[in-house]
Amino acid sequence: MQKRKIVIALGGNAILSEDASAKAQQEALRNTAEHLVQFIENGDDIIISHGNGPQVGNLLLQQEAANSEKNPAMPLDTCVAMTQGSIGYWLQNAMNQVLSERQLDKEVISVVTQVVVDENDPAFENPSKPIGPFISQQEAEKEMQKTGAVFKEDAGRGWRKVVPSPTPISIKEHKVIDQLVKSGVVTITVGGGGIPVIQRENSVEGVEAVIDKDFASQKLAELVRADLLVILTGVDNVYVNFNQPDQKKLEQVSINEMKQYMKENQFAAGSMLPKVQAAIQFVDQHPEGKAIITSLENISGVLAEQGGTIITAN
Amino acid sequence: MQKRKIVIALGGNAILSEDASAKAQQEALRNTAEHLVQFIENGDDIIISHGNGPQVGNLLLQQEAANSEKNPAMPLDTCVAMTQGSIGYWLQNAMNQVLSERQLDKEVISVVTQVVVDENDPAFENPSKPIGPFISQQEAEKEMQKTGAVFKEDAGRGWRKVVPSPTPISIKEHKVIDQLVKSGVVTITVGGGGIPVIQRENSVEGVEAVIDKDFASQKLAELVRADLLVILTGVDNVYVNFNQPDQKKLEQVSINEMKQYMKENQFAAGSMLPKVQAAIQFVDQHPEGKAIITSLENISGVLAEQGGTIITAN
Repeated sequence: MQKRKIVIALGGNAILSEDASAKAQQEALRNTAEHLVQFIENGDDIIISHGNGPQVGNLLLQQEAANSEKNPAMPLDTCVAMTQGSIGYWLQNAMNQVLSERQLDKEVISVVTQVVVDENDPAFENPSKPIGPFISQQEAEKEMQKTGAVFKEDAGRGWRKVVPSPTPISIKEHKVIDQLVKSGVVTITVGGGGIPVIQRENSVEGVEAVIDKDFASQKLAELVRADLLVILTGVDNVYVNFNQPDQKKLEQVSINEMKQYMKENQFAAGSMLPKVQAAIQFVDQHPEGKAIITSLENISGVLAEQGGTIITAN
Repeated sequence: MQKRKIVIALGGNAILSEDASAKAQQEALRNTAEHLVQFIENGDDIIISHGNGPQVGNLLLQQEAANSEKNPAMPLDTCVAMTQGSIGYWLQNAMNQVLSERQLDKEVISVVTQVVVDENDPAFENPSKPIGPFISQQEAEKEMQKTGAVFKEDAGRGWRKVVPSPTPISIKEHKVIDQLVKSGVVTITVGGGGIPVIQRENSVEGVEAVIDKDFASQKLAELVRADLLVILTGVDNVYVNFNQPDQKKLEQVSINEMKQYMKENQFAAGSMLPKVQAAIQFVDQHPEGKAIITSLENISGVLAEQGGTIITAN
């Protein structure tokens, strides 16, 4: 089989289940690494991206709990960078172990990654992504007045800060990432969707925002001209008419078909929809490439060309 | 001038002065980047390492403040990884800006770095490095009984946890780091002395320890066979008979001379001594290389071959 360049976006369940301790998360990642290593055994070169939702949420709570002049809470962009450090460490450590057990001589590296967004992105007008702790309406109103931040009532559980979720337009480090993967280094990057920055004349500046990791992975796959974008989630395949008598498992689908299904509102917003959008976007921009949406457990199936929803240009 | 491979170990003042906010630390690093960029203008390839003492201290306090079953405090190795993320982000961002302002087309990357220590290192028998918050004697005794951790009374200010400071014996990612710097990428690594790990059969395992960043930088310089190890500190030169009538500024010194001065206890433990030891160790292991101990502000002097204490094999 031909050597391919593959970007793999891990789902949330690849890191954290119930137990938020470092030990439990490291164990979960060792299990994840057991699945991922199959791509390497297959001779592929891989880039791995991951989410950070629960981890950055916990970190924000910790920052808030000790917030003082001497120990000020770090802003969101810095907190994302911190989770790139911690999850990157756990994941590269897990990959190293599994590679060593299988006597595969491969280097693994995690890189701190800044993802550029447009400051005129409409998302900045409509913050939608809840982050951080739940607080009372009174506290929320005080904070809104004081800092200009936006808080929204969240499902009866209290008020939560919401931040924009803008579309990634570039990745500062993509050339180095491409160089690393081309030389066979397993590269962990765009953790938590990347550190959100906006472009100034000579610099980029961190912003309070959260980038969807599937979109960030898609942008990276586009920039490095990957052969394959693998978006991992909780299920082996995407379905249409889900849970209805005419439910249909999608196997090989063109982007036009997928766009049609999107028009029919077949995919749940905030869940399968962004994954489908990221897959379509990648193949649209890079028609020689293909995207697969499947589960971590079905990677063996993907490699046997069985299972998974494969999205192609035609 | 010939293109050189240089490892630069930043001093503590390169990041944090009084103000611990992200904004102030980012500004301090932009100033640091203005100095560092001179090496690049000179045509050198650089690897940058940095400390994390105040940052990891603050992070440990934050972790402790919110510690609960749902949001457990992360262990020290993970906290070091987090500061590699945050400080790496700030520093690569600052370097990017200064490079762009000077129209230098260079890539910058920060990598998560694991540093291997020996589990039989005598440092593990004698934890010496204070970390985390001050607590009362009573609390300390309770913690010692419960967790087996070691706490020591610290200069009348209360009790503090102490951890071992073992000697680095290898760096997991050194091959990739060497590959990056060889291809001209400005590489930020071994932040905070690196994530301390011990080698098991097929894996490395994080340990509660702190590695001296100058020793970690020296080990890296040795592994990548750097031409030059630059250890930055608060002063332009190392002195002997410091603050005495016969005070002498050291300019060009052989490692044998330096060893003699060490025997005379010329250098303060925990301050200049480890820097001198790291410099000697590097040149001992790699006699074609040289080490310089100087200040950030004197980098221009170093490049003009003026100022700084230069340690060579002969």
